[in-house]
Amino acid sequence: MKESPEEKRHRLIELAKASVTSAYSTGEHSVILAVNTSNELEKARNLLHEKLEDWYGIFFPELRLSNPLTYARFVSEFGMDKKAVDKAKLHDLLGNSADEVYTKIGNSIGVEPSPTEYEMLKRIADYEIEMAKMQESIDSYLKERATALMPNVTHLVDYKIAAELLSKAGSLSKMALMPAGTIQLLGAEKALFKHIKFGSKPPKYGILFKLPQITNASKWNRGRIARLYATKICIAAKADAFTKNFIAEKLKSDIEATIAKYNAQPQRQKKPQPQRQQRPYRSQRQQYGRGQRGHRRF
Amino acid sequence: MKESPEEKRHRLIELAKASVTSAYSTGEHSVILAVNTSNELEKARNLLHEKLEDWYGIFFPELRLSNPLTYARFVSEFGMDKKAVDKAKLHDLLGNSADEVYTKIGNSIGVEPSPTEYEMLKRIADYEIEMAKMQESIDSYLKERATALMPNVTHLVDYKIAAELLSKAGSLSKMALMPAGTIQLLGAEKALFKHIKFGSKPPKYGILFKLPQITNASKWNRGRIARLYATKICIAAKADAFTKNFIAEKLKSDIEATIAKYNAQPQRQKKPQPQRQQRPYRSQRQQYGRGQRGHRRF
Repeated sequence: MKESPEEKRHRLIELAKASVTSAYSTGEHSVILAVNTSNELEKARNLLHEKLEDWYGIFFPELRLSNPLTYARFVSEFGMDKKAVDKAKLHDLLGNSADEVYTKIGNSIGVEPSPTEYEMLKRIADYEIEMAKMQESIDSYLKERATALMPNVTHLVDYKIAAELLSKAGSLSKMALMPAGTIQLLGAEKALFKHIKFGSKPPKYGILFKLPQITNASKWNRGRIARLYATKICIAAKADAFTKNFIAEKLKSDIEATIAKYNAQPQRQKKPQPQRQQRPYRSQRQQYGRGQRGHRRF
Repeated sequence: MKESPEEKRHRLIELAKASVTSAYSTGEHSVILAVNTSNELEKARNLLHEKLEDWYGIFFPELRLSNPLTYARFVSEFGMDKKAVDKAKLHDLLGNSADEVYTKIGNSIGVEPSPTEYEMLKRIADYEIEMAKMQESIDSYLKERATALMPNVTHLVDYKIAAELLSKAGSLSKMALMPAGTIQLLGAEKALFKHIKFGSKPPKYGILFKLPQITNASKWNRGRIARLYATKICIAAKADAFTKNFIAEKLKSDIEATIAKYNAQPQRQKKPQPQRQQRPYRSQRQQYGRGQRGHRRF
């Protein structure tokens, strides 16, 4: 029996629905969304913390703590009546810097907050602490999922960096088919296009710059270490996406050996290179009038 | 006995400290900080909600609810297993749109989240609900403080608008000494300077645009209603800052009478005005080279 157009349309819609459903059931999306949510939470927490420091700063302007969470805990525990603070408890919270803060409390020019005002402050502070806990739990979920999805890549780099690479690439199979050079520059799109359009210096790394091995490397080694990681991540991603073999041990020892070799070499002298002429910025270009704009150099 | 320089220095530092302390104890700062925190929270909540919709959208892409909090409650209550949702409970949450959503659930192409993933989603949703509660409590604190600090101004306009005006002005006494024209344009600084520098249209209102009386007014009346409010707020702020009399009843009935008069008038025909020449933008100015830049029109 021949299918009527109506039946055919219905069947095709069902097929499309099924393919959408299956595309979303690989678990890649939850990794991507978890890392985005974690980053977003970080931002929201910073916004809120800024306001907390602004506000509690009226009552204790001398307080400076490098860790925002310790600051929030201080407000939550001692904010009501800082003059009556217990030195032992302060020590539990602040460790070595407790004595310094204790002296500051004695000399503070701030007044004490009113009970209703303190209630607000405590709420904001507790909330910030809660937010940090939530971020932690999302991170641990992310770690579990990212490690299950990409055992090879997460063995080479931190799970968060792996998840961010995945998020930029869009999906694991897309990432596996990317050339190493693209992986190296994921997250550096802006600098890359500035390079292509205006001839500024090309970027050497994008998200990969968060790797401690690159951050801590000497400046002249950073580019090649990023390149090295990119090539190995490229291989690892293929294994994660297609063969599902665990080959990361070998890759990791390769990387370590090569970095050791790089570090042993002295800094190379730069060869003098012909200067590439920088394309003028838009505002400067307009000086020559509109007629010029057709003549693109690329 | 004459004061030694050391004693004098010490006495002056103490005086400065005392004046800082008293400046911060008027309660104006807590109003300013509360309104800023409330706005910041709003932003953070929007960031978070976006992520929640992104994430839960995988499992139920058809769900569209105009109120973000209702969305969060839906995720928190029914997100785990939307197919097994109880129709009566759904009706409690969604009211009239429950039937529509119920049909959408039946036809949804989304899969159900795994338990660990749902745990994350529920946490984010609960957190968002919590955040809204906190914002509410800050707002009610703000309302109480702003009304106590500025009984006259808050009688004329919403307490949030009054607090934002105060925040822009810096302090109540500064606000009381401002001309009405400045109050009218608080929050429209960008448009104002664009007008001064480049001769674009001058702004008619800043923060005051949030007043429903202005938003809902006909277009040709908005400017003068803003002007009217600004003049009355200016008087009310002086009363709040200096005399502490409650004169807002009179001011409010004045405003209402004048608005009624404006609304009764037909739209005036615009007189043709000489066109003010617009100063070219920076990028256009550069066409003529740097020599021209000394010739400012103002």
